[in-house]
Amino acid sequence: MFEDTFAKQGVTYPQGFTAAGVKAGIKKSGNLDVAVIYTEKEAHIAGTFTTNAVAAAPVYASKRVVATGTAHAIAANAGCANACTGEQGDKDAAAMQEITAKALGCQPDDVIVASTGVIGVTLPMDKMEKGIKQAVAELSPTGSENAGNAIITTDTYSKCCATEVVIGGKNVRFGAIAKGSGMIQPNMATMLCFITTDAAISSKLLQKALSEVVETSFNMISVDGDMSTNDMVVVLANGAAGNEEITAEGADYEAFKSTLDDICKGLAQRIAADGEGATKFLTVHVTGAKSFADAKQAGMSVAKSPLVKTAFFGEDPNWGRVICAVGYSGVPMIPEKTVVKFGGIPVYAYGVGADVDMEALAKVMAQHDIVIDVELNEGDAEATVWTCDFSYEYVKINGEYHT
Amino acid sequence: MFEDTFAKQGVTYPQGFTAAGVKAGIKKSGNLDVAVIYTEKEAHIAGTFTTNAVAAAPVYASKRVVATGTAHAIAANAGCANACTGEQGDKDAAAMQEITAKALGCQPDDVIVASTGVIGVTLPMDKMEKGIKQAVAELSPTGSENAGNAIITTDTYSKCCATEVVIGGKNVRFGAIAKGSGMIQPNMATMLCFITTDAAISSKLLQKALSEVVETSFNMISVDGDMSTNDMVVVLANGAAGNEEITAEGADYEAFKSTLDDICKGLAQRIAADGEGATKFLTVHVTGAKSFADAKQAGMSVAKSPLVKTAFFGEDPNWGRVICAVGYSGVPMIPEKTVVKFGGIPVYAYGVGADVDMEALAKVMAQHDIVIDVELNEGDAEATVWTCDFSYEYVKINGEYHT
Repeated sequence: MFEDTFAKQGVTYPQGFTAAGVKAGIKKSGNLDVAVIYTEKEAHIAGTFTTNAVAAAPVYASKRVVATGTAHAIAANAGCANACTGEQGDKDAAAMQEITAKALGCQPDDVIVASTGVIGVTLPMDKMEKGIKQAVAELSPTGSENAGNAIITTDTYSKCCATEVVIGGKNVRFGAIAKGSGMIQPNMATMLCFITTDAAISSKLLQKALSEVVETSFNMISVDGDMSTNDMVVVLANGAAGNEEITAEGADYEAFKSTLDDICKGLAQRIAADGEGATKFLTVHVTGAKSFADAKQAGMSVAKSPLVKTAFFGEDPNWGRVICAVGYSGVPMIPEKTVVKFGGIPVYAYGVGADVDMEALAKVMAQHDIVIDVELNEGDAEATVWTCDFSYEYVKINGEYHT
Repeated sequence: MFEDTFAKQGVTYPQGFTAAGVKAGIKKSGNLDVAVIYTEKEAHIAGTFTTNAVAAAPVYASKRVVATGTAHAIAANAGCANACTGEQGDKDAAAMQEITAKALGCQPDDVIVASTGVIGVTLPMDKMEKGIKQAVAELSPTGSENAGNAIITTDTYSKCCATEVVIGGKNVRFGAIAKGSGMIQPNMATMLCFITTDAAISSKLLQKALSEVVETSFNMISVDGDMSTNDMVVVLANGAAGNEEITAEGADYEAFKSTLDDICKGLAQRIAADGEGATKFLTVHVTGAKSFADAKQAGMSVAKSPLVKTAFFGEDPNWGRVICAVGYSGVPMIPEKTVVKFGGIPVYAYGVGADVDMEALAKVMAQHDIVIDVELNEGDAEATVWTCDFSYEYVKINGEYHT
């Protein structure tokens, strides 16, 4: 990932954005749990949302905001997902919008709302109202770190980044905060990502760029279709950088999209690496597939396999589990044409185990970051999927995360 | 499951079958590891095999035997899967057939072969030859228990059963031994099941019956398409019961198929219950789906979810994870029409959490066998899927099962 020197400035790095995170008493731990992000200058917006048929109330509310094309704010909380909460949930999501809008002096449909935490519990709206009002009062250009910490749940740290690129002769800034840790399939721990930029870009192209980069970033970690009830990625572009608004594809659009792609890939990788209980960060790189879809499917099959993941936790170079997961992935493959490498070392080649320098392989397996290459030799397409290992700690976190 | 008073007689319960299991030194533990099952009277046979593109050498060899329609014997080993072993693997599987045939006085293509254990290692053929010869020498009407123990790997016990049914006025017996424990998706620990019967039935109808019952038994535990490189279910019917050969569908065929179905369901359930590290046996019963395929897909989505499985390990009635897994299953469902029950107690109803007697629910969660009902209210189709929970022990077994 790019050097994010200004990472901690996060969503407030672009011009015109402020943020805050406060303790509203929604998380049992008493940690920061309500975040507000604000731009006085109206922002063009884009969003991608969970495809789960059981989607949370804030997902529906925020989809309606994204459909309007513009917004001024994001209000989010952790500790309660406001999912499976029926009509009360819809009322509470609408109330979050109203409370935030009133405090900021904008309209309810200018406010994107997001929640993450336990499913099936209604929001404590008294605490929420107090928290939102306090967050709005504390909005500041240095508030991104608190906002980031207010949206995490089982994450071990808040993911954030900030970067700059020249578009149309102007310095354009991007910032983001993201959370998500239960990224082990099938995922239900919400992934949230809020991205701000001072670029001027039309809502239509902003949505196009976001939809495209999400395909090769957040949708390539082992969460994919198995999204939670609450997942969302939202971008706010307020145009404060003063570049000529991007309204058509071309060099400016490509520069914008490329930066957005870097940000999303970087954050997606960090989310996978910070998976619940993770001790390893695994990159599954599938090449020689007949299509990107095939390459992704084979990679996901490996990345989602508990047996592969537990083997890497145990630092066991058990390539049989990898080739087996490729074999049952449903992707056309011929064992006699396939090669598997761990950290660049061939472990399986053309139908049989490869002669391996076990000492060198043991060094690969001991590393934190490990690349698994799968070469199908069937075509020219490739895909990269990111995941983590599967440890005792995962079982502990999820066996003890009581409702 | 039916009362299997004669369970331990297993594959030797039907007339005309003998079996043996011996210690050939293939398992590191030194336990029983080579099994032979034999019928002097030629048996009609049927088989279903792994659909994994990376299939083991014995799978290919045994498929060719099943294609001939008849056989006299099964030779199997645990401790080495003979998978991903290239040409040498094919030669070794053929040698297993030849050694067994020579010792028994039949032809190599009368011998079904099966292997389970570590992938990517070639069979120690000197030990195998000695083991097969010893097993043939020890064949007896009381050898099923040893044969069953010789094919298990991480199973905590050998699964076996025996039963009897009247077909065409004759007592027809069935027996079976099965193994499989890494049944937690995506499974790569081989599932093997050998069924014997003294029924007289044509190979064609035997295959039809087997293929049908496998769909609602072994393919309904959370292994399914994620079959290992070595999975197989084989039935040998030697006709010694003296019933008029079943050559067409009708009452006799239905009686035969129904018994075969009981056997396969019972063994499938035991395999799921004895999943690696399992502390709970979970039955996911989906009703009101538009089709059996939909019901199965929704059930599998729940049964395969590590978050659901860890919740049950922790005895946490976390219905949010269940409804979420149904939501992302891809099956048409409307949250407001759906009901979820644990042990008969509604926990989620029509979009929101149900009012629950938490004390009664805690008693359900503390039980070993728990039924999860998912009522979609979309149609008339249903399906039942069996799985187990996901414990520390699973991670331990698979993190430490070094190659």
